[in-house]
Amino acid sequence: MAKNLVQKILDAHLLEGRLIPGEEIAVKIDHVLLQDATGTMAMLEFEALGIEAVKAEVAVQYVDHNILQTDNKNADDHKYLQTAAAHYGLYYSPPGNGVSHQVHMEHFGVPGKTMLGADSHTPGAAGVSMLGIGAGGLDVAMAMAGFPYYLPCPRVLGVELTGALPDWVSAKDVILEMLRRYNVKGCVGKIIEYYGPGVKSLSATDRETIGNMGTELGATTSIFPSDENTRAYLEAQGRGECWVELSADEGAEYDEYDAIDLSSLEPLIACPSSPGNVVPVREVAGIKVDQVIVGSSVNSSFRDLMVVAKIVEGRHAHPYTSFHVNPGSRQVLENVAIEGGVMSFLMAGARIHEPGCLGCIGMGQAPGTGEVSLRTMPRNFPGRSGTRDDQVYLCSPETIAAAALRGVITDPRDLGSEMEYPRIKDPEKYHVDISSIIAPSEELRSVEVIRGPNIKPLPEMDPLPGTLTAEVVLKVGDNISTDTIMPAGNQVLPLRSNIEAISKFVYSQIDPDFYKECLAKGSVVVIGGENYGQGSSREHAALAPRFLGVRAKITRSFARIHKANLCNFGILPLTFKNPSDYDLFKKGSKVAFPAVRTHIEKGDVEIPVEVDGRRIVTFLKVSERQRKHLLAGGALNFVRQHPHAEGRPS
Amino acid sequence: MAKNLVQKILDAHLLEGRLIPGEEIAVKIDHVLLQDATGTMAMLEFEALGIEAVKAEVAVQYVDHNILQTDNKNADDHKYLQTAAAHYGLYYSPPGNGVSHQVHMEHFGVPGKTMLGADSHTPGAAGVSMLGIGAGGLDVAMAMAGFPYYLPCPRVLGVELTGALPDWVSAKDVILEMLRRYNVKGCVGKIIEYYGPGVKSLSATDRETIGNMGTELGATTSIFPSDENTRAYLEAQGRGECWVELSADEGAEYDEYDAIDLSSLEPLIACPSSPGNVVPVREVAGIKVDQVIVGSSVNSSFRDLMVVAKIVEGRHAHPYTSFHVNPGSRQVLENVAIEGGVMSFLMAGARIHEPGCLGCIGMGQAPGTGEVSLRTMPRNFPGRSGTRDDQVYLCSPETIAAAALRGVITDPRDLGSEMEYPRIKDPEKYHVDISSIIAPSEELRSVEVIRGPNIKPLPEMDPLPGTLTAEVVLKVGDNISTDTIMPAGNQVLPLRSNIEAISKFVYSQIDPDFYKECLAKGSVVVIGGENYGQGSSREHAALAPRFLGVRAKITRSFARIHKANLCNFGILPLTFKNPSDYDLFKKGSKVAFPAVRTHIEKGDVEIPVEVDGRRIVTFLKVSERQRKHLLAGGALNFVRQHPHAEGRPS
Repeated sequence: MAKNLVQKILDAHLLEGRLIPGEEIAVKIDHVLLQDATGTMAMLEFEALGIEAVKAEVAVQYVDHNILQTDNKNADDHKYLQTAAAHYGLYYSPPGNGVSHQVHMEHFGVPGKTMLGADSHTPGAAGVSMLGIGAGGLDVAMAMAGFPYYLPCPRVLGVELTGALPDWVSAKDVILEMLRRYNVKGCVGKIIEYYGPGVKSLSATDRETIGNMGTELGATTSIFPSDENTRAYLEAQGRGECWVELSADEGAEYDEYDAIDLSSLEPLIACPSSPGNVVPVREVAGIKVDQVIVGSSVNSSFRDLMVVAKIVEGRHAHPYTSFHVNPGSRQVLENVAIEGGVMSFLMAGARIHEPGCLGCIGMGQAPGTGEVSLRTMPRNFPGRSGTRDDQVYLCSPETIAAAALRGVITDPRDLGSEMEYPRIKDPEKYHVDISSIIAPSEELRSVEVIRGPNIKPLPEMDPLPGTLTAEVVLKVGDNISTDTIMPAGNQVLPLRSNIEAISKFVYSQIDPDFYKECLAKGSVVVIGGENYGQGSSREHAALAPRFLGVRAKITRSFARIHKANLCNFGILPLTFKNPSDYDLFKKGSKVAFPAVRTHIEKGDVEIPVEVDGRRIVTFLKVSERQRKHLLAGGALNFVRQHPHAEGRPS
Repeated sequence: MAKNLVQKILDAHLLEGRLIPGEEIAVKIDHVLLQDATGTMAMLEFEALGIEAVKAEVAVQYVDHNILQTDNKNADDHKYLQTAAAHYGLYYSPPGNGVSHQVHMEHFGVPGKTMLGADSHTPGAAGVSMLGIGAGGLDVAMAMAGFPYYLPCPRVLGVELTGALPDWVSAKDVILEMLRRYNVKGCVGKIIEYYGPGVKSLSATDRETIGNMGTELGATTSIFPSDENTRAYLEAQGRGECWVELSADEGAEYDEYDAIDLSSLEPLIACPSSPGNVVPVREVAGIKVDQVIVGSSVNSSFRDLMVVAKIVEGRHAHPYTSFHVNPGSRQVLENVAIEGGVMSFLMAGARIHEPGCLGCIGMGQAPGTGEVSLRTMPRNFPGRSGTRDDQVYLCSPETIAAAALRGVITDPRDLGSEMEYPRIKDPEKYHVDISSIIAPSEELRSVEVIRGPNIKPLPEMDPLPGTLTAEVVLKVGDNISTDTIMPAGNQVLPLRSNIEAISKFVYSQIDPDFYKECLAKGSVVVIGGENYGQGSSREHAALAPRFLGVRAKITRSFARIHKANLCNFGILPLTFKNPSDYDLFKKGSKVAFPAVRTHIEKGDVEIPVEVDGRRIVTFLKVSERQRKHLLAGGALNFVRQHPHAEGRPS
């Protein structure tokens, strides 16, 4: 049978289950990606598993999130991660070396491999046709230890690309067009496979942009064929030998279809405060812009920076527009410097930052009160920039450059009257620099792991009781992101390896007393709407609430990674059988889950719940494996009790 | 009579008083320098004076301190400063454009001019033979408004330089030698004038290093002759027409003398946690180094960065040593980029940051727990890095480079075995870039001043009562710095324009409940040892305690700027007549100042104080003018009540 590319890659990695959408499958993971915000906890979890060394083919610990060091905590975490990487056999990419997605593609990416990353934008690996999936830290720790990754087999959405992008329109506008069509949950449970004649007009880094931000659609991941462009990229990186050709079989089919004519696209922009609020740039043109940022997680490649550098060359940013450049990697910055881009940026008044995530995760670059910020970053959830009531727009590097020069939102095509569109050609050979990455070695295995005072062991978690009673402490609406559940930013991120300390910030934007109320109540329920837990893969959005006593979340629907994280940490992810039952719950409602343990042991999908004495039905749609984890009080408890139950290779 | 250079410059600017050490003089101020950490308050104070426009010849508002934006506050301050600069007629140097001292010297410095700066390292202006003095924000605000600057006429210490620096030894080692000889208070009340044949071996930026860090000696400022090197620097900046030759008259005398044979110097290093703890580098060689930083306030010039870039060229930093580069200005970074230094740094694994103060003021770059950090910065007071119990050493760029490569403290002369010393020649013409600085103009005067929600007006302060009774809430030892009184860092600096909010951090490192106790007591006394209030010029170390009810500080001695700030905000700066009376005070002591108002009105130097019922005598050694300010409850109260009393030109 003709297979699409997703089926081919999954098939080659399938350890359990069948490739039928919705059925749980176990997939072999080739590469593991860790970053420092989620990685300290993932590393602690790996250590808790008691495994001597990493078993995945390639595992890389990146430090790119917490690189503003305002006290000892981040530097302590970096040292912990560096020494743990040495001791357990991971590559280590130090602070200042760049964003995991960019660096991984440069130096490690191989077409057709699978990668599990403790970062929701891991699907950027689509740039070199890897199947990159974001997951919670515990799943990633288990993949490091050689366990398979379990997920419900996704549906495959085939998107046929035709034509080629017009001048002043670029890859960002392709993914913004997808967001315009599907919004932030339209691709939940799906992998997007791009195919068709338009694919060849997109470079590897263009595809990275589209794959990376596919996360904002709710997609499990995205994939592109591995073709001549992939080969050219890998050869430019000096890794041409890694290339293999990959594409869907002739006549392959998809579960769903869509198509984009690239030549019909125009510059698009996501308005505050959701990546799904997409309109044409021209519709919001003229709004005063206080800040522009090119780079970070996405659009931080050589091409993306150079197109901006060329547009602003010999010009200067508007005096009231703060112009930031966040290179994706040390190597990108080096190549941009070689091509004269650093000088163009500086002379245009830009603030060039060390390579890393920075403002994308609220580590610096927060705009002022009421200020408008245009960013190439993937997310603009409320407050993620660090500023309450922020006005963050997401757009292409071209639109960034136009706003930098004009000081107002500007359709970059308007610049066509004063200059030719600078179409950037990727170098045939990049200047390659892997010198700052420390490779694992036998010698390094003897390094002692150094733990700073803020690095605390995981709290113990009790198993699910026979019958659960709890109280509703919070009720929220639709599309609550993990940024809202567990904020990031400079104050909170440094606490990622200290659950007790970080738990004080759970839901702090909505209710600063949330954590106190939880601790006072003992057992707690949170009520949510649709797409609860979208956004970042951070498992702290499950782990910290669990520490506070949250035992169940009842919502209209869950985002994929967050639901998996809830199971991993023993919080019941329940959905209303009758969606209008949402209205029965309010803050202070008393909730009982009679005989819940027995229901889950029996494999019941319907779990009865009593709210203020009234009985309703909820669904528990999880795998057999996840039921076991929920009963044990979390996956780590279960795996410790049954070390050979989860298909780990010996 | 033959005059030294200090006398010549002071004479040319003298508005009141005689040049007799200790007598109060009033000096005309030509240039005014503001930065954003002290400048928001200085600008608010300027506005409180009710003056329509800046009267100083040149006034520049730099934004270099609070450039990590983790929420709205810093960006709000930047916008306030930019719009206020436009409205009142200051130049504005935006975030990312560089450190005030470096940028001012590049674009504005003129030999023989006076400059008052709301930054204690303003004496760096010595690089181009300006008499730069650091002061509290209110003094600077008044200088902006055209008032003279009042200070006790300093003694002049003449330091004769002979010889020339050996390879691997540089200007930083000269000022470290001065610190080895005089420690952190040996030059209080003095201006240091360097002269002699050795002067000509030091470039303008070498002199900037020595002048800048002369602040750590307690000196009022430092000066160098304006000679061919000064001309060469100004010509390289395209400003040769500003040059004038300046030197001491033949046969001029000094109040004190010292001499340094430059050729006899070796690499020196200031150990934790005082700039005065100086030893030869070889004495501490071999200590493991976790972090090195070249740049920030001092040693961030073209030469200083290039010498490091050349040393590390083709090499790589030690894998456990985080290597940071903080360029002094956008223009420095541009020139370093042109000369290939940016590539050398990046390929050696350096983290290049945007130009600014950064780690020097605890805005990022904090080392980990117990980690050793080597910095070219001027200060290593405890905790200033952002990390408690930090281990910060101060040294030359050469010593930084050696530690970066070897991973341990290394005498840079040891590198001589593997390379020639890269003696850097400053360019004959710098690539000059002033494009990001916004010049004042009539057109900009109509800009509306924008105030974010964190920008609060100055609190009102009551006049000194007839008799004062208070309680000792804190007793501290010698050399307490303003960093200890009013911490900086990423959490506190953004509150600089909000006195009520920032006052919660006064003395928080020593006693987190200090502010609560003060507010509970109402009127408070602090007891200190020698050199109380050394370090930064921050007036918040007076203003915030005053807000908390501190009405007097009794110490063995005061640092100059802090004492002036205390007078400005109506806190009595008293010293023990009998130093052993220090022992009579303890936390909780009841202190009375009987008829204190009458004593001050009468001009008494001896102020009687009762501690727990026992009478002692303290000295109030302040000028007539400062007495008036103390009686009025602060200088601003006095000036508002007597707008024409202070020699302001009409």
